[in-house]
Amino acid sequence: MPELRKDPITGRWVVVSTERQKRPNDFILHKATVIGREHCPFCPGHEAMTPPEVLAYRAHDSGANGRGWDLRVVPNRFPALRVEGTLDREGEGMFDRMSGIGAHEVVIEHPDHDKTFATMTEAEIARVLSAFRDRVHDLKNDFRFRYILLFKNQGAAAGATLEHGHSQLMALPIVPNFIREEIDGARHHYNEKERCVFCDIIRQEMSAGRRVIHENNDIVAIAPYASRVPFETWVLPRSHASRFEDAPPQVLASLAGMLKSLVGRMPRVSRVAGFEWGSGFYINPTSPEEAAEVLRAVRL
Amino acid sequence: MPELRKDPITGRWVVVSTERQKRPNDFILHKATVIGREHCPFCPGHEAMTPPEVLAYRAHDSGANGRGWDLRVVPNRFPALRVEGTLDREGEGMFDRMSGIGAHEVVIEHPDHDKTFATMTEAEIARVLSAFRDRVHDLKNDFRFRYILLFKNQGAAAGATLEHGHSQLMALPIVPNFIREEIDGARHHYNEKERCVFCDIIRQEMSAGRRVIHENNDIVAIAPYASRVPFETWVLPRSHASRFEDAPPQVLASLAGMLKSLVGRMPRVSRVAGFEWGSGFYINPTSPEEAAEVLRAVRL
Repeated sequence: MPELRKDPITGRWVVVSTERQKRPNDFILHKATVIGREHCPFCPGHEAMTPPEVLAYRAHDSGANGRGWDLRVVPNRFPALRVEGTLDREGEGMFDRMSGIGAHEVVIEHPDHDKTFATMTEAEIARVLSAFRDRVHDLKNDFRFRYILLFKNQGAAAGATLEHGHSQLMALPIVPNFIREEIDGARHHYNEKERCVFCDIIRQEMSAGRRVIHENNDIVAIAPYASRVPFETWVLPRSHASRFEDAPPQVLASLAGMLKSLVGRMPRVSRVAGFEWGSGFYINPTSPEEAAEVLRAVRL
Repeated sequence: MPELRKDPITGRWVVVSTERQKRPNDFILHKATVIGREHCPFCPGHEAMTPPEVLAYRAHDSGANGRGWDLRVVPNRFPALRVEGTLDREGEGMFDRMSGIGAHEVVIEHPDHDKTFATMTEAEIARVLSAFRDRVHDLKNDFRFRYILLFKNQGAAAGATLEHGHSQLMALPIVPNFIREEIDGARHHYNEKERCVFCDIIRQEMSAGRRVIHENNDIVAIAPYASRVPFETWVLPRSHASRFEDAPPQVLASLAGMLKSLVGRMPRVSRVAGFEWGSGFYINPTSPEEAAEVLRAVRL
């Protein structure tokens, strides 16, 4: 059973998840093996290779966990957290831990093994966003969860071990420090000015223009003023909205268009090194003004 | 001139350092070129390839910036921050920035191109630690600096572009959020209990033993309770001490012995992936108890 442990100094929680017993040789660094199409558990006809689906968009005449789907959401076969169980808390001397309860799901975005956000249609990307929305609505009903995260590792360089396009969703029983900092900062701004900090940023950036990468009716993408890495990009709704899962279909469609446009613009850049890792302090060799200029100029 | 920019939500500062003008092709990811011994600016006889030394341990009859040294400290040729100038602050609408003032130095640890902490003697490692101490004492006199960081990228996988063993030192005009969190947490513990949180951790860990990797007279190395990554290791002085630069020679010698022992034990492990990067929340597949057990058992 994985567990959550709290650092006694900073209050930061980590997951310690040691399901598979490891021996010293298991720690040696080797390139992750990428699973190709022959053994792909996400391709149509291989549905039995995943746990049973928790959500699927599929033809009316198709049965659960068989062919005939456009998109499937399944529990991760190697979850970092477990959905079954109660949220037990206990101490070990001065240390605190709780059981590693959480959801860890995989969104299989498209039946075609090779589709990516760059090659999907906007409607197909919007379908992925609808799945995110639907799963968030469902997981919010579980009172054990306090934070839901959506993320996507694209390609082996980003750590993806399966080629077939997919995203991941995690529901956690704690709010990460990183997120609490952001919420506290936004609340502080609101208390001081009675205005939303994100709305203020959007207003200033759209009026200045230098850090705007792309905009459409509902969404704007900017290179944030204090970008930590080259081409850091924030995607924000132009009208004040605080819950992704309540976005109307029109906004999800605009967001899909924005994401497709952004993945077509992104260059691959260098990795984070020791300094950033050790200090939590970032040195960015590319200004957001320059990044926005380069990305705006990409011909799609 | 590099500049420091503040994120308006979290208050996190980043360095935006764009000295070299870049074009789109410059952003493409390629393996960093490692500079080998033929063109090594850190080898004896090549002293003119570095900026003038700010500290050197050298034979009495040798002249500055020539041969005859055991260790040299020089300014980084491509500094992320500049030591010259005043600390100017200005706004840009709701955003805040200050001039990118700071020190960025390189400690050339040994004349031998191939020496690492694993192959140096304890006395040679202690010499490196003495250089850290001496540089910290000097930089503390500069009232513009609020934080000094020492770090070391060992090998190309860690981002080092020069083979010749070296460490780096940065003095910053701000305290990173990450460090402020740690200081605030330690102060909170002290205010509540009138005890040092690090002393409390050491006491509990040495009594339990399961997460102790190695100890000597003055220093203890532990796998911390809430380790973020496999084999995360904390190296702590056994007696309460809050300033590295005030450590007596005996403690520096013990620390040198500890570091030599630790580098001999470390396995190479996998990298941090998208989830940690995006959430600031870590999933660690190796418990610190297991890590300590593996590292304790390494035969040196």
